Amino acid sequence: MRRALALAALGPATGVNPRVGCVLLAPDGSVLAEGWHRGAGTAHAEVDALSKLPAGAARGATAVVTLEPCNHTGRTGPCSEALIAAGVARVVYAATDPGERSSGGAERLRSAGIAVTPGVLADEVEAFLADWLFVARHGRPRVTVKWASTLDGRAAAADGTSQWITGPDARADVHRRRAGADAIGVGTGTVLADDPALTARDDDGGLLGRQPVPVVFGRRPIPPAARVARHPQPLVVLEGRDLAADLADLARRGIRSLFVEGGPTLASAFLAAGLADDVLVYLAPALLGGPGLAIGDLGVGTIADAVRLELAAVERLGDDLLIVAHPTPVRASREPVATPGGI
Amino acid sequence: MRRALALAALGPATGVNPRVGCVLLAPDGSVLAEGWHRGAGTAHAEVDALSKLPAGAARGATAVVTLEPCNHTGRTGPCSEALIAAGVARVVYAATDPGERSSGGAERLRSAGIAVTPGVLADEVEAFLADWLFVARHGRPRVTVKWASTLDGRAAAADGTSQWITGPDARADVHRRRAGADAIGVGTGTVLADDPALTARDDDGGLLGRQPVPVVFGRRPIPPAARVARHPQPLVVLEGRDLAADLADLARRGIRSLFVEGGPTLASAFLAAGLADDVLVYLAPALLGGPGLAIGDLGVGTIADAVRLELAAVERLGDDLLIVAHPTPVRASREPVATPGGI
Ligand SMILES: NC(=O)c1ccc[n+]([C@@H]2O[C@H](COP(=O)([O-])OP(=O)(O)OC[C@H]3O[C@@H](n4cnc5c(N)ncnc54)[C@H](OP(=O)(O)O)[C@@H]3O)[C@@H](O)[C@H]2O)c1
Ligand SMILES: NC(=O)c1ccc[n+]([C@@H]2O[C@H](COP(=O)([O-])OP(=O)(O)OC[C@H]3O[C@@H](n4cnc5c(N)ncnc54)[C@H](OP(=O)(O)O)[C@@H]3O)[C@@H](O)[C@H]2O)c1
Repeated sequence: MRRALALAALGPATGVNPRVGCVLLAPDGSVLAEGWHRGAGTAHAEVDALSKLPAGAARGATAVVTLEPCNHTGRTGPCSEALIAAGVARVVYAATDPGERSSGGAERLRSAGIAVTPGVLADEVEAFLADWLFVARHGRPRVTVKWASTLDGRAAAADGTSQWITGPDARADVHRRRAGADAIGVGTGTVLADDPALTARDDDGGLLGRQPVPVVFGRRPIPPAARVARHPQPLVVLEGRDLAADLADLARRGIRSLFVEGGPTLASAFLAAGLADDVLVYLAPALLGGPGLAIGDLGVGTIADAVRLELAAVERLGDDLLIVAHPTPVRASREPVATPGGI
Repeated sequence: MRRALALAALGPATGVNPRVGCVLLAPDGSVLAEGWHRGAGTAHAEVDALSKLPAGAARGATAVVTLEPCNHTGRTGPCSEALIAAGVARVVYAATDPGERSSGGAERLRSAGIAVTPGVLADEVEAFLADWLFVARHGRPRVTVKWASTLDGRAAAADGTSQWITGPDARADVHRRRAGADAIGVGTGTVLADDPALTARDDDGGLLGRQPVPVVFGRRPIPPAARVARHPQPLVVLEGRDLAADLADLARRGIRSLFVEGGPTLASAFLAAGLADDVLVYLAPALLGGPGLAIGDLGVGTIADAVRLELAAVERLGDDLLIVAHPTPVRASREPVATPGGI
C-alpha cells in the first residue's frame, strides 16, 4: 500500500479527480504492474496498471489501490468492472470513496465474488487525500476565511488606510498559506480599493512555486488593468449572490481549497452563510476604534446565536498573534446562565 | 534593611502614604528601636522609631529606612529634620522618594553632615512600593482597562445581550484581578444597563477578602437602589469629563490602582486619553458581528496614528484567551512601508 501511495503522489495535486495509485500483485507476492491516475480524462490507476499487462495476465492477482475502486462510468468506465473483467481475485484498498456517484465499488466487487479488504493504511491515505475527500463529501472546496485586525476588531482606520496592520512575519505566513491553497478569493470591493496581485510571494516579492487561482466575488466589473487580470493563473469571476452555488462551481473547476482574504463584506458573507471551515485571525497588538470593522454584520441578533468557534491554535508571529479556529455547534455550557451577582 | 521592609509591611496597603519601615542601630550594630508608618496623619517610620527612645539616645546611631526620609512638612514634620535633631550619624535607605514636595531629604541630611547611603535593597523595596511609586511619579493611579469581546471585537449582540461572552475561567480571573485593585471603575451606562455589584467574588459568589472601591464615571444620577450603592466600600462618583483630573482626585483619596471594566464608552475614553497603563482583553472564540462594539471611537483618523501596544502575555483561560498588553510609542518598523506587490 505504501508503494501504491507513492505512485498516487505522482499524479497532479489539484483537479476534480483524486490522486490514486495501484499495484497489481501475483499470488506469490511479486509485482505484476503499477499504475496511477494522471488527472481527469485519463485512465484511473487500476486501469492504468491493467493496461500494462497482456490480456489474462491479471487473472488471480491482488489489486492494491489507495482508494476504493469506482463504480461510476465517467470519461472512463468503472474500475470495479475493469477489475472484474481482468479476473482479479482480491482487492485491498485504503480510503472509502465518499462520492455520491462513484462509490459502491467495493460492493460491486464483492457481488462478483472478489475478496475485498478495505481500510489498509486508511489514516495515511485519508490525510494524503484530505482536500479531495472534503470536496467529495461536501460538494465544495474547504474554505478558510482570513482577516487581519487590531485587538479591537478593526481592519482599517477611519480614512480607509489599512497597510500594514500586521507585521512582516504575519504577512509571510499569509503568503505561505496562499501558496498552500488552490484558490484565493476576494470581493470586488477589495479589488477596486487595493488592486491586489493575489499571488503567493516570498519575502522579496518573488512568486512562490505554487500559485492559487484568483477568484473575485461580485458583480461590479473588474478594470482591465487590474493586477488580478495579470495573475499567472486565469482569473475566475463569480457573482457572489449564492455562495454555496459559487463554491460548487469552484469544486467543478477542480478547486479543493479556497482562501478567502476579504474584504470585510465578503468575509462576513462567508461566515454568515456558515461556509467557513477554518477561521484565521491575524491580530495586531494595536487599537484603532472607529468604523473600519474587520467583520461587519453576521445576522446574529442575540448572544445565544453567536457563531461559536473552537480555538485550534494560537501562534506568535513577530509582534502579532495568529488565532486559528473552527466553527463549532453551540454548547450548553456557553449558554447564558444566572450566576450570583452579575458583573 | 530586610527587617525595615518587614516593618513597612505592617502598615496599611492602601492610602496616599507609602508603607515605610525604619530600624535604628547603635554604632555596635545592636538594634536601638524600630518603627513603621501606620497611614496618613500618623508618625512617619523614622519619627515612630525615634519616639521609642529617650532624648539623646539616638545620637551617633544609624537609621536604616526603606524610603528616602522626607523633606516635607505635612501633617507631621519632615523626617530629615527629626533625624538631624536626634543626632543620627548615618542614614541608609532603599528607594528614592520621587514625590515633588517630599523629595530632597537625602540632600538635606548630607548638608547637615550626615553620611547617606542610598539604594540598599532598592529593587526589592521598589517592587514592594510599586503602586505607591507609580502614583508618586504620575500623580494618578495605575490604570488597567479591561474588556471582554469576541474575536471580531464585539462586546454585545445586536439586541444588547452580552452575558456571558467569556467562560467561567475568564470571569474568575477578572474577579481575582478586581480583588488586587484598589478601585474598580465603570460608566453610568453600565450601571444603568447592568446594575453590576462591582464586588470581587469567588466562584460561589462569596465576597473575596479585599474589595475594590467602586467608582462610577458619569453625570447621570445613580438609582438609589443600584447595587453599587450597597457595596462594602463607599461609592465614589466622578463626572468623567476630565479623566486626568478624576484620576488625580482618586490618587488624593489614596487609590493607587484602578481597574476600568467598561463599558465601551468609558474604556474608549480612557484609551483615547492615553490613560491606560495595562490593557486586558478577554477574547472569546466566537463571532457576533453587528453594532455591539467593545471599543468605540478612539479619535484615530489614519493607520499611522493607531494606538500601538506591546504584547506582555497571552494566556489560555478555559476556552478563552487573555491578552495582556501595554501601550508603546509608535515604532518605525510598524509604519507603512511599500513592499512589492501589495496584498
Ligand atoms: N485587513 C484585512 O484583512 C483586509 C483584507 C481585504 C481587504 N481589506 C480592506 O477592505 C476594504 C474593502 O471592503 P469591502 O467590504 O468593500 O470589500 P470586499 O468584501 O472585498 O467586497 C465587497 C463586495 O463584494 C461583492 N460581493 C460578492 N459576494 C458578496 C456577498 N455574498 N455578499 C456581499 N457582497 C458580495 C459586493 O460587490 P458587488 O456589488 O460588486 O457585487 C460587495 O460590495 C478595502 O479598504 C481593503 O483594504 C482588509
Ligand atoms: N463586554 C464587556 O467587557 C462589558 C463591560 C461593561 C459593560 N458592557 C456593556 O456595555 C453596555 C453599556 O455601554 P456604555 O458605553 O453606555 O457604558 P459605559 O461606558 O459604562 O457608560 C458610558 C457613559 O459613561 C459616562 N461617561 C463618564 N466619563 C465619560 C467619558 N470620559 N467619556 C464619555 N462618557 C463618559 C457617560 O454618561 P453620562 O451622560 O452619565 O455622563 C457615558 O454615556 C452595557 O450593555 C453593558 O452590558 C460590556
